[in-house]
Amino acid sequence: MFNQVDGEHCSNFRVYSEDTDFMGIVFHANYLNFFERARTEMLRDHGCSLMSLAEKGIYFAIHDVHLRYIYPARLDDNLTIKTSCIKKQSCSLFFRQLMYNQQNQMLSEATVQVVCVNKILKPKRLPEEFI
Amino acid sequence: MFNQVDGEHCSNFRVYSEDTDFMGIVFHANYLNFFERARTEMLRDHGCSLMSLAEKGIYFAIHDVHLRYIYPARLDDNLTIKTSCIKKQSCSLFFRQLMYNQQNQMLSEATVQVVCVNKILKPKRLPEEFI
Amino acid sequence: MFNQVDGEHCSNFRVYSEDTDFMGIVFHANYLNFFERARTEMLRDHGCSLMSLAEKGIYFAIHDVHLRYIYPARLDDNLTIKTSCIKKQSCSLFFRQLMYNQQNQMLSEATVQVVCVNKILKPKRLPEEFI
Amino acid sequence: MFNQVDGEHCSNFRVYSEDTDFMGIVFHANYLNFFERARTEMLRDHGCSLMSLAEKGIYFAIHDVHLRYIYPARLDDNLTIKTSCIKKQSCSLFFRQLMYNQQNQMLSEATVQVVCVNKILKPKRLPEEFI
Repeated sequence: MFNQVDGEHCSNFRVYSEDTDFMGIVFHANYLNFFERARTEMLRDHGCSLMSLAEKGIYFAIHDVHLRYIYPARLDDNLTIKTSCIKKQSCSLFFRQLMYNQQNQMLSEATVQVVCVNKILKPKRLPEEFI
Repeated sequence: MFNQVDGEHCSNFRVYSEDTDFMGIVFHANYLNFFERARTEMLRDHGCSLMSLAEKGIYFAIHDVHLRYIYPARLDDNLTIKTSCIKKQSCSLFFRQLMYNQQNQMLSEATVQVVCVNKILKPKRLPEEFI
Repeated sequence: MFNQVDGEHCSNFRVYSEDTDFMGIVFHANYLNFFERARTEMLRDHGCSLMSLAEKGIYFAIHDVHLRYIYPARLDDNLTIKTSCIKKQSCSLFFRQLMYNQQNQMLSEATVQVVCVNKILKPKRLPEEFI
Repeated sequence: MFNQVDGEHCSNFRVYSEDTDFMGIVFHANYLNFFERARTEMLRDHGCSLMSLAEKGIYFAIHDVHLRYIYPARLDDNLTIKTSCIKKQSCSLFFRQLMYNQQNQMLSEATVQVVCVNKILKPKRLPEEFI
């Protein structure tokens, strides 16, 4: 799962009022919500849900995020997020994610390190199917 | 705890960018966050934290909310929330909460029914100290 | 637009990590986000977006919400929201909304009064196409 | 304003239910909310509010964020955030922010580039008092 040969995963999300702030654009912290939804959908497309992993005592914690904001996302935008797994370690997955709007403008770029942890948040090896 | 003779509990919260939406006011769902913070602070002032209750298998679930929005809360507002426990049942607490801004304008009014539940969300009797 | 003869509007939303709280269920305030998304999609299906209305100086403010929580929404749930416009006044729309999960359990019920306002949040008559 | 000689700014924030997720810890995107609140309080301590700046057509947009998550923030935690302005450019401020819990454990570290923009989000020079 999550091999480079899989190529990019693509998902779409709508921007609603809840995501915006008084500047009329998506509040900067909320970009992380969209990127997280996209990683969850990538997982789901591989036949895996966060709930089914939690039932096996497998959780994912975020260890490191680098976010660049290039162009603002706005109310009613139909966002496309392209997600690639760019590196794997025994306990970690590294993702590169790009956000585009419906005019195909690149809005934001994220690099995210996700660590596999158990219920009490201690790092553990990625499940077999991820390696 | 939470007797009517206790009178009103009062707490203060600042409005930040995250709370606002593209209309330049606090997003309507976020009023519920402020009301919840106020009930949590009322609990804390009675020597009780949500974490310490959770460790004893005691949780609170919301069963019913009625919210009236009178005047908008805005960025940088210093909100005052007045909370009263207006009724108790064996498993439920009923709160009336009023939100004011720094000009003492009433912004919103909430009536909230909170049910005491166990870890799997089944209703249970309120702990002794609440009765 | 929004006539009773239109019947119910139906939309679907996924529950993500961001929506949950430490009790493992959707945080009570976030139900309002899902109900708001559903009203926005109902509007969009009638050819209208919040952004296009904002450009004409037409905004919607929430005046009154009554929410009943029947059964908790959970991570990975695929929610269905059924929305009906149950009453119209010169400046207001009244909606009744029901939330279901993928097992068709009713999770929550909302009654919402939405007021049409101008940029400075003064009530104004609903646009022609809404009447 | 925001000179290095000013040293660190310190502010405190409580963690509430709304901030947590199903893993029982603060949801990773919400750390950005706390860091944003801290920068806003730093500004306020310098006699400046976001609202008063907005009235002068001065806004701040986030351009770049690097976040490291070291140890999880939890429900009821009393967070301390230490904020320093580490660099200034004609249109940008660079902040380094550290989050601690009540046991003085470092939970998270952020580096944030904030760009001064006008109402239509075009970069503009920082106001005099910031230079």
